[in-house]
Amino acid sequence: MERVPILKIGDILLVSIQVDMSDQTAVQLQEDLAERIVATGCHGVIIDITALDIVDSFVGRMLSTIASISKVLDAETVVVGMRPAVAITLVELGLSLNGIRTALNVERGMELIAASRADDWDEAPGDEDAETTATP
Amino acid sequence: MERVPILKIGDILLVSIQVDMSDQTAVQLQEDLAERIVATGCHGVIIDITALDIVDSFVGRMLSTIASISKVLDAETVVVGMRPAVAITLVELGLSLNGIRTALNVERGMELIAASRADDWDEAPGDEDAETTATP
Repeated sequence: MERVPILKIGDILLVSIQVDMSDQTAVQLQEDLAERIVATGCHGVIIDITALDIVDSFVGRMLSTIASISKVLDAETVVVGMRPAVAITLVELGLSLNGIRTALNVERGMELIAASRADDWDEAPGDEDAETTATP
Repeated sequence: MERVPILKIGDILLVSIQVDMSDQTAVQLQEDLAERIVATGCHGVIIDITALDIVDSFVGRMLSTIASISKVLDAETVVVGMRPAVAITLVELGLSLNGIRTALNVERGMELIAASRADDWDEAPGDEDAETTATP
């Protein structure tokens, strides 16, 4: 069975999907990814699909599941590298990638995750405390 | 024909090899990589081989060729993610990865490239000028 490698780069886990995903490979990837998120404490998952010629409902569901699992583990998922033809087919098939954010390439995906983490911090309760202390 | 995706992360091009390399795929990867190095001006190439169960003489030669091409284009190549079994087989087969530097994972590979670039700068003639100016 093929196993999709997961690369850690700073606070982000990078997965580049290049092989045809079987049911088993997909489940294995979900498990591996969940374990790595917990083990590393990473807050972002970037899935690169540059190599995919087509994203069918199976792959779409897999991406949605990964995003949902990551969310529960406090990690943001961004899908990057989608080809124009893939985007067109997705829309034509009526597939919506539920709960999945996309970016053009890995670098923009990283920026998206960093920005989203920064927003989270702005909204964190810690900030309100700071304001309360500042009030005379 | 399968095409191995090349991901740009900052000053580094990342290639994750997951498919069995045919003659044609290897040549295509070399061409793509050379073009991307020139187009992006990146100074580092990281090749991840986590997914490879075996590195035979063909793959070894391909890695050496990529390293040589990158060197000519002023980019450093680091191979990362080699499995213990692969390392053992390489030595048993008597294959030496000529001109190839290795690191345990992507992050260490990035550090290696950054450190090596810093060394290059230290040895650059610009520094001697600075010293000359500093001398009274």
